[in-house]
Amino acid sequence: MTSDNNVQVSVLGLGAMGAALAHALVTAGYATTVWNRSPGKADGLVAQGAEAAATTVDAVRAGRLVIVCLLDHASVHEVLDPIAHELSGRTLINVTTSSPAQSRELAAWAAQAGVAYLDGGIMAVPQMIGRPGASVLYSGSADVFHQYRPLLDLWGTSTYFGEDAGLASLYDLALLAGMYVMFAGFMHGTAMVAPAGMTARQFADMATPWLTAMTGAFQGFAAVIDGGDYTVKGQQSLEFSTLDTLLAASSDQGISTEAVAMVQRLIQRQIDAGHGKEGFARIIESIKHPQNPQDLVEHDPITA
Amino acid sequence: MTSDNNVQVSVLGLGAMGAALAHALVTAGYATTVWNRSPGKADGLVAQGAEAAATTVDAVRAGRLVIVCLLDHASVHEVLDPIAHELSGRTLINVTTSSPAQSRELAAWAAQAGVAYLDGGIMAVPQMIGRPGASVLYSGSADVFHQYRPLLDLWGTSTYFGEDAGLASLYDLALLAGMYVMFAGFMHGTAMVAPAGMTARQFADMATPWLTAMTGAFQGFAAVIDGGDYTVKGQQSLEFSTLDTLLAASSDQGISTEAVAMVQRLIQRQIDAGHGKEGFARIIESIKHPQNPQDLVEHDPITA
Repeated sequence: MTSDNNVQVSVLGLGAMGAALAHALVTAGYATTVWNRSPGKADGLVAQGAEAAATTVDAVRAGRLVIVCLLDHASVHEVLDPIAHELSGRTLINVTTSSPAQSRELAAWAAQAGVAYLDGGIMAVPQMIGRPGASVLYSGSADVFHQYRPLLDLWGTSTYFGEDAGLASLYDLALLAGMYVMFAGFMHGTAMVAPAGMTARQFADMATPWLTAMTGAFQGFAAVIDGGDYTVKGQQSLEFSTLDTLLAASSDQGISTEAVAMVQRLIQRQIDAGHGKEGFARIIESIKHPQNPQDLVEHDPITA
Repeated sequence: MTSDNNVQVSVLGLGAMGAALAHALVTAGYATTVWNRSPGKADGLVAQGAEAAATTVDAVRAGRLVIVCLLDHASVHEVLDPIAHELSGRTLINVTTSSPAQSRELAAWAAQAGVAYLDGGIMAVPQMIGRPGASVLYSGSADVFHQYRPLLDLWGTSTYFGEDAGLASLYDLALLAGMYVMFAGFMHGTAMVAPAGMTARQFADMATPWLTAMTGAFQGFAAVIDGGDYTVKGQQSLEFSTLDTLLAASSDQGISTEAVAMVQRLIQRQIDAGHGKEGFARIIESIKHPQNPQDLVEHDPITA
């Protein structure tokens, strides 16, 4: 099915994500060996044709390519440190969620152990692996990325960011930041309308197309930010964007205003600095240049 | 073109939004009279076939239906209070951005003045009026909504929420809350990757499809929230959602962590209350039940 599916692959870690990654490999015909710390997780994959390894040493010896998908960075070292000599000369792709600093640390560890290293950040839930919409970000060894590209493409759209192994984690986390903050905004809206008798599902029916449409504003903000001139015509000004009505209406509903108050602080700092007539995109300056602590700990109107 | 386009309509307020609304009416063949406090704004509409009124009294006398789109609630009273007697017996549709309390106050004012009242919240920028994606929320008089539905549908998808005139504003503001908070999340991500050399446009290219896909999670959260049981299987737990790595990586990039720290506080309060094994959707409980002030004014890690 792929040009390199005679590659022997080992997958360490069979949580929901690791199992989904291994499943995609087995389905595509790769000879796949799997290992998990707690037993029983491999059974379904074995039924599909994978080999189960009893130890990490056995698993690594079975694969020219070793894929690691564990709980966190500490787990990765716990599992790999004792078998560094076995990994030497092989290729390691680590898709465990890590910070950029942790990814760089593991890349340095791999270099010292004689292991070719590629770091991955998965932008998908396990159910999405191998389906449209799944995306995996990579950084580290360009050679590894290009050699195994057909295999990587089985999981989702593959994007490579460069030799700095921390880049995939950085972009991964930046996108996750956008997601978690968006989720908080959805929850705020849902909480606002709940006292008026609207269900969360009814609000989701409105919020899903609305926020999807509003992602259309990102490119406009981005053009202003990249241009470096927040005074260009046609933008909604910071003064017009003041969220006083939104904060008051949230308070009136008896809910915490902290999600909206966070945005209002980003806006207000730019207005206070004399930029009220400039465009909304300028709030990024409040994020890029953090102020002193008292600017960040304003009281929440509902409780102050 | 419509069943009632022999209705005489007056539009008070020709900012970008008011002008867009009037333009849609003129284009559809409605006899439209327009007024704006500062002169000159009517010229383009007059060239298209609208009548310009010199005074608000003239404007109101020309229209059985009066549409008001002004800067804010105070402007609405400034313009309408002196001409309440002229409005008596007519129909007023107010699409000025208002809080629910302000909309209810104006509905009461209209009832006293003998004016049929419908309140509207526009979910669109002026450029979107009359195009796919524009949505206008209404509440107040059901009779007015149904009578003028063909006219209202010229602007965008019309949704009616009930006789309580404050409902349209409430839902409008709840959706705007989601939007502004999402924008802050986009800006956070953009600021995170900027030191690594990624432009805002490059980040927008990734964030637009990513956040669009992630709006797909809203219905799942909503089902859990409406069900009232945050322990149902298949959810990402609050403990798994802890944003420590995200906060640390943001700090490492030298940017303010306040957008992500806001989400982390919502998560942490539920974990602290013993709900760490339950689903992420439970953060709505942190919003619905605000804590005492010291819970809301935690220091931002980058500056603390």
